[in-house]
Amino acid sequence: MRTPICDRFGIEYPIVAFTPSEHVAAAVSRAGGLGVLGCVRFNDADELDRVLDWMDETTDGRPYGVDIVMPNKVPTEGTAADLSSYIPEEHRAFVERTLTELGVPELPAGDDGAAGVLGWLHSVARAHVEVALSHRISLVANALGSPPQDVIAAAHDRGVQVAALAGRATHARAHVEGGVDIVVAQGYEAGGHTGEIASMVLLPEVVDTVGSDAAVLAAGGIGSGRQIAAALALGAQGVWMGSYWLATTEYLQTHANSATMQQALVAATSADTVRTRIYSGKPARLLRTRWTDAWAQPGAPAPLPMPLQNILVGEAHRRIHASHDPSVVAMPVGQIVGRMNSVRSVAEIMAELVSGFDEAADRVQAARVQPAR
Amino acid sequence: MRTPICDRFGIEYPIVAFTPSEHVAAAVSRAGGLGVLGCVRFNDADELDRVLDWMDETTDGRPYGVDIVMPNKVPTEGTAADLSSYIPEEHRAFVERTLTELGVPELPAGDDGAAGVLGWLHSVARAHVEVALSHRISLVANALGSPPQDVIAAAHDRGVQVAALAGRATHARAHVEGGVDIVVAQGYEAGGHTGEIASMVLLPEVVDTVGSDAAVLAAGGIGSGRQIAAALALGAQGVWMGSYWLATTEYLQTHANSATMQQALVAATSADTVRTRIYSGKPARLLRTRWTDAWAQPGAPAPLPMPLQNILVGEAHRRIHASHDPSVVAMPVGQIVGRMNSVRSVAEIMAELVSGFDEAADRVQAARVQPAR
Repeated sequence: MRTPICDRFGIEYPIVAFTPSEHVAAAVSRAGGLGVLGCVRFNDADELDRVLDWMDETTDGRPYGVDIVMPNKVPTEGTAADLSSYIPEEHRAFVERTLTELGVPELPAGDDGAAGVLGWLHSVARAHVEVALSHRISLVANALGSPPQDVIAAAHDRGVQVAALAGRATHARAHVEGGVDIVVAQGYEAGGHTGEIASMVLLPEVVDTVGSDAAVLAAGGIGSGRQIAAALALGAQGVWMGSYWLATTEYLQTHANSATMQQALVAATSADTVRTRIYSGKPARLLRTRWTDAWAQPGAPAPLPMPLQNILVGEAHRRIHASHDPSVVAMPVGQIVGRMNSVRSVAEIMAELVSGFDEAADRVQAARVQPAR
Repeated sequence: MRTPICDRFGIEYPIVAFTPSEHVAAAVSRAGGLGVLGCVRFNDADELDRVLDWMDETTDGRPYGVDIVMPNKVPTEGTAADLSSYIPEEHRAFVERTLTELGVPELPAGDDGAAGVLGWLHSVARAHVEVALSHRISLVANALGSPPQDVIAAAHDRGVQVAALAGRATHARAHVEGGVDIVVAQGYEAGGHTGEIASMVLLPEVVDTVGSDAAVLAAGGIGSGRQIAAALALGAQGVWMGSYWLATTEYLQTHANSATMQQALVAATSADTVRTRIYSGKPARLLRTRWTDAWAQPGAPAPLPMPLQNILVGEAHRRIHASHDPSVVAMPVGQIVGRMNSVRSVAEIMAELVSGFDEAADRVQAARVQPAR
């Protein structure tokens, strides 16, 4: 399968992989797609720098990108300690009580918890951009809104393309007017931060809205060659896949506690997700577990705004990971989780996507009634 | 465009139109698709009988079908008067107060309101089946669950195919085990009663689940040839379109008050729908208006179970229709409403679907890298 976006990046297949794992990102780039490393997990820009050094070395000269979260509007800014002071005691008590009720143990002695994700702060995101642009990247993507003008300019100065996610056609229009090169149309079915309009409807709307001003990638619900063919039929130039790479052997190399998470994902059906604000403060689709259920009970507090909610649950997430209990996993994932039924290598998945696309393309072509000659 | 389901029904295009309008259904059948008349609006089986006589005469010998709502489990059964006694006073007061606040006038003198939709009752649905099977129909569909075994048997005895809607793969499996011939996989983006899994994810799941036991039609988010091509890429044999026919000149012939409704639909974007239980008691996607907003306010009562909720709002719906105010329209519609931007004829839409499919099929084919010879 081949579309104009392949030439734009010098890649073999129009498959972009968004992943928090450098191991997955590098494997996708080596297999002919474009690996995009999510940077929000790096609270320390120096750590990102070291990981991008590794990416430069392990991608065999193939292109790769980064995803940096630059929200349009952040309510509060500051260090983890500063921000913590904004969190109501009621919320802390609810989290503590819920973890106890769910049987999630305390952290081992010596582990003093975590700061939560600070990558959603402007100051941290800016440091990420600076570090990333000093590496051999081909794409900077922003998951929340249009990137700031100076970031777009700095990227373009270095020949780096800029992408932004859109859950509505109006957002896509704003992106291209701001100079974004690639719009990722992300449907309701997607994992993580997502809107309410499903891919089948959203994608043609975004394609028609941006016209020739930008290339469009389809995100949300993609995990097979059939779905890539559907995305291309709807007008996309390629796909942006996130969730599907969580069930890979490469992902397991990134986080020591990923095996429990993968066990939960492999067991889940497409009905086992929930769109909720409990992860970050903005609506995001998560695996439905006893943890998300607890937040949906009557009497549970309303989630806090970004970035406070993730700081609130930062330590809870560490305790949950350390518990090795699949029934309480706190993990963003899309409805495609229902098709993530085994843990496989990136290369195997890529080969399946390509052959599945060919079969689907042939099926569509078979339904095409050729005009009489 | 042509798939095996065309031969099954003797139709030209794999496009099935679900519509409450006999004028739309007949026009779709005449234009080479399969018109399916929704029967839930007929509280009186004799009226359905007369309308199907008209369908027999005006479809030029082309096939058509009916959709009869046969829920698996109905909490209460009885006449409109019996059922009314189950409705709490709090709910009646809320409806009355809301209509006043929204500026919806009383019904004119002499109009004593309506019973609400009784087609959701078993007794009424049974009468519909009996009437329909005495006509020249090719399909009986059920929007809520598998049809009863004796209905399937009676349909098959007369060479009539049976279809059922499914919002999850497990429902689809149950349908084919019950003897259903066609599964309509209806995604989250659809109008009316709908589940939570979007078409992009649901459709391949249903296709793989039913295998060769049934044909699958894609419902939810379909309003263009691109979307039909996407549905076929995902494994469907055709599409089941509902909302899109509401913005047709033929629909206007059915209901005297449709012009206001069409005005509201044409103005709406894909973000202007809401999935709520206020229409029937089960989750259904409606156009978002001041009426749906009122039910989403804090303090609004929880909707009643089916069939009580529709009986509760039956008179409100009549008052709303009579008000000719597009800002309070109470209308099931899918997210594709964002693309329903003018009122056109069924024939014009059908022609556009066919040409749009061809273009999309060609686009997918262009991305297919032919194997080296």
